[in-house]
Amino acid sequence: MSSGLVTSRRNRRTPYTDCVEALGVSGFSIVNHTLLPKSFARSVEEDYWHLKEHVQLWDVGCQRQVELRGPDAVLLAQKMTPRDLRSMKPGQCYYTPVIDNHAGLLNDPVLLKRASDWFWFSIADSDVLLWAKALALGMNLDVQVSEPDVWPLAVQGPRAEDLVASVFGDETRSVRYFSFLECDFHGRQLVVARSGYSKQGGFEIYLDDSALGSTLWDTLWEAGADLQVAPGCPNLIERIEAGLLSYG
Amino acid sequence: MSSGLVTSRRNRRTPYTDCVEALGVSGFSIVNHTLLPKSFARSVEEDYWHLKEHVQLWDVGCQRQVELRGPDAVLLAQKMTPRDLRSMKPGQCYYTPVIDNHAGLLNDPVLLKRASDWFWFSIADSDVLLWAKALALGMNLDVQVSEPDVWPLAVQGPRAEDLVASVFGDETRSVRYFSFLECDFHGRQLVVARSGYSKQGGFEIYLDDSALGSTLWDTLWEAGADLQVAPGCPNLIERIEAGLLSYG
Repeated sequence: MSSGLVTSRRNRRTPYTDCVEALGVSGFSIVNHTLLPKSFARSVEEDYWHLKEHVQLWDVGCQRQVELRGPDAVLLAQKMTPRDLRSMKPGQCYYTPVIDNHAGLLNDPVLLKRASDWFWFSIADSDVLLWAKALALGMNLDVQVSEPDVWPLAVQGPRAEDLVASVFGDETRSVRYFSFLECDFHGRQLVVARSGYSKQGGFEIYLDDSALGSTLWDTLWEAGADLQVAPGCPNLIERIEAGLLSYG
Repeated sequence: MSSGLVTSRRNRRTPYTDCVEALGVSGFSIVNHTLLPKSFARSVEEDYWHLKEHVQLWDVGCQRQVELRGPDAVLLAQKMTPRDLRSMKPGQCYYTPVIDNHAGLLNDPVLLKRASDWFWFSIADSDVLLWAKALALGMNLDVQVSEPDVWPLAVQGPRAEDLVASVFGDETRSVRYFSFLECDFHGRQLVVARSGYSKQGGFEIYLDDSALGSTLWDTLWEAGADLQVAPGCPNLIERIEAGLLSYG
């Protein structure tokens, strides 16, 4: 179902919104108070076949990060999820349900371990930031909880590896599923993770400087000219086929 | 700015959404993961004059309630806001900024005191539920924190009092600003508060049974036939004029 969306400053744009608008985005959802492109000019069927054969850029900046840093970051992260984090190493991504004290599901983020005292929960649609902040406050933990200026951009499809390697180097080809490398980009060290919401394989690039949004998009776009790169978004057909079912 | 909204089950409908769709709603925002009507067929100017002269029904079901009940409800409510709650009595509404431990604003709800151990924070757009739950958990408080099946419906405009009195009785005329009465409706005791997002005066009715949504809407609609009742939403011109400025 599609209807009119009246946007406002409360519904945040991402560093890539200008780019997807220029490419004809036709519908959005709101996730974490942020615009998520949900449709472009082509039909869901046409988009499905393109995603299965080529490569797409997805503006998934709405996947906000809840950052935990400090001596008690491990303690708080473990308090938030039933998944055992003891063997998690820096450079790994874990799928970590966040539950409340009655085991009710609050969110199903991917957790990235940046360092021994530094985590990012890359969240779905609820303000986990408030949950984490209040837990830290109530438990008197020594940890900084914040939402950093980090905006994921997904590269999905069978040619995603070729595209990412052409921009960030061949070492990205060896990144394993649910692991990440840090790669140089215009003076920043971006997290480049093999992950994302399709079965076709691909990467999520965690840009930590919103001012570089269109630069990152355009760099990938230009490098993908020969790969038939197109703008995209999680495809309903593909994700049902992949078992990546989603309430939203 | 208006664009396409792709809705899903993650973006909740309210018990009144069917009614506003039947009346030609043309645009929504998303607040608390819930649809908020933002425009109808008439222009903002035409809507402004109607609101100043007549009466409107606003689907503000997106104003979700964070309910605190139990022995430590007062303690938790006071922990959440810098406003002194000691003199607050049941039947009163307080405007209560919710802030974090750095005095950062998390939300600006209206707090309703239902009883000495029973509060509702009627919230703006952030998951205060998670903040309250985690504080209670971290501080080990004896309080139930939940989101009840409560859906506010606003009646705004100079004829709002006549309309509400015709449905809920003349005793509603004596309800003071930011106070509420409990009124019988189809076997429920609804909170009827003099409050709402316009300077024209009016009420917010807190329906605590979603199955009665269209019954409540239709009852007010039929009672308002002689009062030129119309569907509406917070009006940009009117709220700027009233100093009710809003980020969203």
